[in-house]
Amino acid sequence: MNYKIAVIKGDGIGPEIVEASMKVLDKIGEKYGHTFDYTEVLAGGAAIDACGTPLPQETVDICKASDAVLLGALGGPKWDNLPGDKRPEAGLLGIRKALGLFANLRPAMLFEELRDASPLKSVIIGDGLDVLVVRELTGDVYFGEKKKDGDFGASDLMNYTRPEVERIARVAFDSARKRGGKVTSVDKANVLETSRFWRSVVLEIAKEYPDVELDHLYVDNAAMQLVINPHQFDVILTGNLFGDILSDEASMLTGSIGMLPSASLGEGKFGMYEPIHGSAPDIAGQDKANPIATVLSVAMMLRYSLGLTAEADNIEGAVKKTLAQGYRTGDIANENSDVVGCVEMGEKIISNL
Amino acid sequence: MNYKIAVIKGDGIGPEIVEASMKVLDKIGEKYGHTFDYTEVLAGGAAIDACGTPLPQETVDICKASDAVLLGALGGPKWDNLPGDKRPEAGLLGIRKALGLFANLRPAMLFEELRDASPLKSVIIGDGLDVLVVRELTGDVYFGEKKKDGDFGASDLMNYTRPEVERIARVAFDSARKRGGKVTSVDKANVLETSRFWRSVVLEIAKEYPDVELDHLYVDNAAMQLVINPHQFDVILTGNLFGDILSDEASMLTGSIGMLPSASLGEGKFGMYEPIHGSAPDIAGQDKANPIATVLSVAMMLRYSLGLTAEADNIEGAVKKTLAQGYRTGDIANENSDVVGCVEMGEKIISNL
Ligand SMILES: CC(C)[C@H](C(=O)O)[C@@H](O)C(=O)O
Ligand SMILES: CC(C)[C@H](C(=O)O)[C@@H](O)C(=O)O
Repeated sequence: MNYKIAVIKGDGIGPEIVEASMKVLDKIGEKYGHTFDYTEVLAGGAAIDACGTPLPQETVDICKASDAVLLGALGGPKWDNLPGDKRPEAGLLGIRKALGLFANLRPAMLFEELRDASPLKSVIIGDGLDVLVVRELTGDVYFGEKKKDGDFGASDLMNYTRPEVERIARVAFDSARKRGGKVTSVDKANVLETSRFWRSVVLEIAKEYPDVELDHLYVDNAAMQLVINPHQFDVILTGNLFGDILSDEASMLTGSIGMLPSASLGEGKFGMYEPIHGSAPDIAGQDKANPIATVLSVAMMLRYSLGLTAEADNIEGAVKKTLAQGYRTGDIANENSDVVGCVEMGEKIISNL
Repeated sequence: MNYKIAVIKGDGIGPEIVEASMKVLDKIGEKYGHTFDYTEVLAGGAAIDACGTPLPQETVDICKASDAVLLGALGGPKWDNLPGDKRPEAGLLGIRKALGLFANLRPAMLFEELRDASPLKSVIIGDGLDVLVVRELTGDVYFGEKKKDGDFGASDLMNYTRPEVERIARVAFDSARKRGGKVTSVDKANVLETSRFWRSVVLEIAKEYPDVELDHLYVDNAAMQLVINPHQFDVILTGNLFGDILSDEASMLTGSIGMLPSASLGEGKFGMYEPIHGSAPDIAGQDKANPIATVLSVAMMLRYSLGLTAEADNIEGAVKKTLAQGYRTGDIANENSDVVGCVEMGEKIISNL
């Protein structure tokens, strides 16, 4: 089969990690008889520099005409002083909205080989950590009406509608069925009308999934529970803002933020795949970046958008094997590791496919 | 001197921990020649049961006529199914607003004797943890206009005005001057108009405090940094919603949530003081609760509202001494501790005054 992949290399370490991951994908193509046609498009800082806007229309059009999008990382200090709607982040928010990518899947898992890297005590980590955060991605206070009242004040509208909550709730319940069978919906229903509404819709959708366990936590409590008892979680279902905070907290607890992929999905099979870490401008272009989160994002792409399960398993297995062989990029190295650069890490993974 | 204290014992373990703390305060009065006149008033669940509303007007009036308010904890499962504005939390939010308590000071500190209780590895804890979260308490999405659009959706308005941000920023900068000299303002300025406004006002106020270091973090990054590098923080300045989440996360990292006090302050010296933990209905009335967070809240009251510094120091010293003697309530006990109940813990502290 032939698949069309739109590629946004992005800023900072984006190009390096994406290039390493494309080589992995090419090797998968060779091995299983697929071809991947890449179309490189611009967004974020690179697009601001080249076209004066963080999200050129051409980028949206080409992404829409593709089977999936692979993204490196956007942003950097160079563009930090631009006004809100001209910054790299506006490109990221814009592309999510334009492509209808309402479901952000962020697995926070501990890699057995890297368990010492977790900031949590081993009595809390126990035999691992494996939480899937299902974050709503195109609603909430991110996209509600914004107002600036001169020098006197400003506001953003937090809101959710029924269809928005229904569809993200279904993604969470469906995911839980394939995992531990439990959804924890996180809100602030003791204060927010939006949260009370969210909770009522989640309760309705739960009736379609009598086999999935459901509980509810307030966001402040969830932020605490993640730290002292992460094992209680299987799938965390939450809105855009709380999901931003909790998924980052959860991923940091694994100690392996350079390893964690993410998927942003829409209604069909189409999706955008990217590492959860940022563009790390301080080490850009030095062949020091860890490409694993992007390589694992490619595996998610094969699994979710292209339906190529064996291929995805192959990549994930090769990453595990490479870690077991002791190869590490600088960010995850300890005294016993064989430190490799971004390019070499990619090659090691390929040799283990 | 004679001081008027309004006392809201509250629900669950509230009455026990407040009574133990009042005895400590009485002893301080005896020792230093002050009298404390207590007026007990109702809020939360107890007020719902007695008066059908979580915040009777009489409570507000008596609090306003006092020098300070001492609060136990509000809420419990008994009242969880009431509509939003009839729940115990509405009493808490209502009292903050009615009394103009815009500045919530939440110290998250590690007690040397309890350092093993932190979920963080000791390499991260290092020689302690001492962060002061300064949370704005009467604005933000908590108090913006709420709308319910029938079955179809709901919204809450997030907003801040200049005077609201100015006054809380000053509290944070003033606090930093008395501590480590650093303020970290937390927002989501890459997405929210409210946050961009917040940041611009904080930058202006910072000019009045050239001796205080200021930096800015996005809330998702702050949630991560707390877990891997809490030592970078001295004072965290943030809005109501982010403050709710981050202060709970920070306090959990100390492993001593049963030990942490808080102050909610208004324009003058008046304030409300309460432990940050909840009403723990599961252990209510069993003499198992840890009164230390409330006792330390009394110390904050002496310091901030009554200007009685020596008295506050005396209480804090007595708590430290009691811990050093090995006395622990169940929540903070380990195999070597002398486990005592709520009443006895209060007595031990008094004997160490
Ligand atoms: C860069 C920023 C706009 C973005 C977000 O808040 O969604 C990022 O933090 C993320 O989580 O992908
Ligand atoms: C009970 C709730 C309304 C309250 C809040 O969110 O402010 C609590 O979590 C707190 O932090 O004091």
